[in-house]
Amino acid sequence: MTYCLGIRLNAGMVFLSDSRTNAGMDQVGTFRKMIIYEKPGDRFMVMLSAGNLSVSQSIRELLQVQSLKDGHGDQPLTIWNAVSMFDVARVLGATVRSVNNDDGDALQKAGIEFNPALILGGQIRGEAMRMFLVYSAGNFIEATRETCYLQIGESKYGKPVLDRLIAPTVPLDTAAKCALVSMDSTLQANLSVGLPLDLLVYREGLLQSNQIVCIDEDNPYFQMVHKTWGRRLKEVFDTMEDPCWEGGTAGHPIRTASSRYEPMRKISNPTEKIV
Amino acid sequence: MTYCLGIRLNAGMVFLSDSRTNAGMDQVGTFRKMIIYEKPGDRFMVMLSAGNLSVSQSIRELLQVQSLKDGHGDQPLTIWNAVSMFDVARVLGATVRSVNNDDGDALQKAGIEFNPALILGGQIRGEAMRMFLVYSAGNFIEATRETCYLQIGESKYGKPVLDRLIAPTVPLDTAAKCALVSMDSTLQANLSVGLPLDLLVYREGLLQSNQIVCIDEDNPYFQMVHKTWGRRLKEVFDTMEDPCWEGGTAGHPIRTASSRYEPMRKISNPTEKIV
Repeated sequence: MTYCLGIRLNAGMVFLSDSRTNAGMDQVGTFRKMIIYEKPGDRFMVMLSAGNLSVSQSIRELLQVQSLKDGHGDQPLTIWNAVSMFDVARVLGATVRSVNNDDGDALQKAGIEFNPALILGGQIRGEAMRMFLVYSAGNFIEATRETCYLQIGESKYGKPVLDRLIAPTVPLDTAAKCALVSMDSTLQANLSVGLPLDLLVYREGLLQSNQIVCIDEDNPYFQMVHKTWGRRLKEVFDTMEDPCWEGGTAGHPIRTASSRYEPMRKISNPTEKIV
Repeated sequence: MTYCLGIRLNAGMVFLSDSRTNAGMDQVGTFRKMIIYEKPGDRFMVMLSAGNLSVSQSIRELLQVQSLKDGHGDQPLTIWNAVSMFDVARVLGATVRSVNNDDGDALQKAGIEFNPALILGGQIRGEAMRMFLVYSAGNFIEATRETCYLQIGESKYGKPVLDRLIAPTVPLDTAAKCALVSMDSTLQANLSVGLPLDLLVYREGLLQSNQIVCIDEDNPYFQMVHKTWGRRLKEVFDTMEDPCWEGGTAGHPIRTASSRYEPMRKISNPTEKIV
């Protein structure tokens, strides 16, 4: 499994990926899932990948040379000459389909699903930042203001904290912190997600980033997040009133006079049936 | 889908279930998933169910009359005469198998999976409280001191908060509060989990419970949990330091001198390959 996360904010973008791959519990490896495609001053693009590792690596490699016949001009379209991130996502979609054409049948015969999922975010000079999630069929969706983050792989454990805290107006470093909390919950729940992490923070308009770090178990900031979040969560939880069953003076009774339904009970006589 | 949760603590047990069933987005219903089997002063048992509704309802009904030939005595074993919760779980397993025998083939032909999952917890006079998770094959596992809660259905969204806060020594009402937080996160993330909820708190040794409530959207306590948890979580999050990229005086730098790995970068020239 894998957990990768991309967040597109007004101020920039945050990318975070784990690095565990496995083929069964007894065959675990470390392969990083973030790659940067960069033309300094012109374009800065980041891709995160989930799914079968051979497929991801092929896509990552071929994406650099993939070209697409395009109605817009004479030149074939590549990620290096595209004038929009939308077109870059189309090239990535074509790359996914091309790997499926080459390997899909043989994988299927071997009982291996062709299941890549990719997050691609970036900025080309003259265009706004954009972020896409590309599926195994090469189709894709884009992050929007309403849903400004995209996840691939083991997405569920880390989703509640994102839903509660992430919005387009959140500052970049705050979003990076939130991404790490989301990853921390996932690391604890799923053994197939593992350290080290790759974290990249991109500031709108820069067309480059030097806020990139590989986070392992010794990283002081990630250690602090891990310890503090758990402890503080417990403190907050403890300050929230417990349910009070007997009414009295509690401001928020759990039992109210007009409960909509009675509990379903079956009392002792084994020959009688539930109505 | 469904989300049901059972917690076995030193002080007692907590059970919580949602009530949404669906056959596609356009066919949504309310069916409650908690049932109490009770012989006052002798035994108190609670069952939560997930999976195909027709299967769950059949299991619930037949469990009352299911009997099992047993090596222990002349009388066939039932949930009403069993002397241990382990034997009750065996009767439930036999009930699951019996419904599979009756309906499994026809369901399979109709493309419907036989997929019940059941949490069964309770206490029989003279025995400690016990809680089991019964699978579709009728086999089962028991909650222990190390893993004192069991979930069925949509378990992932609500798991991190349980892992951080639940232990056998937690008081009953605190565990009930935690269960509601776990459910709240799940309700927000998965439309196929829905109100009203059934919450039951059982105190060790009582062989009965009057702490049972059906919680709908107007419940003052659940409203408080929903609002307070989200707000306080944000406050805690805000007090945790953001990552500081430039080192300086920050106690927990995110960037360290000896980063284990460099980022994977591919810079511009499209004819060159990644090494």
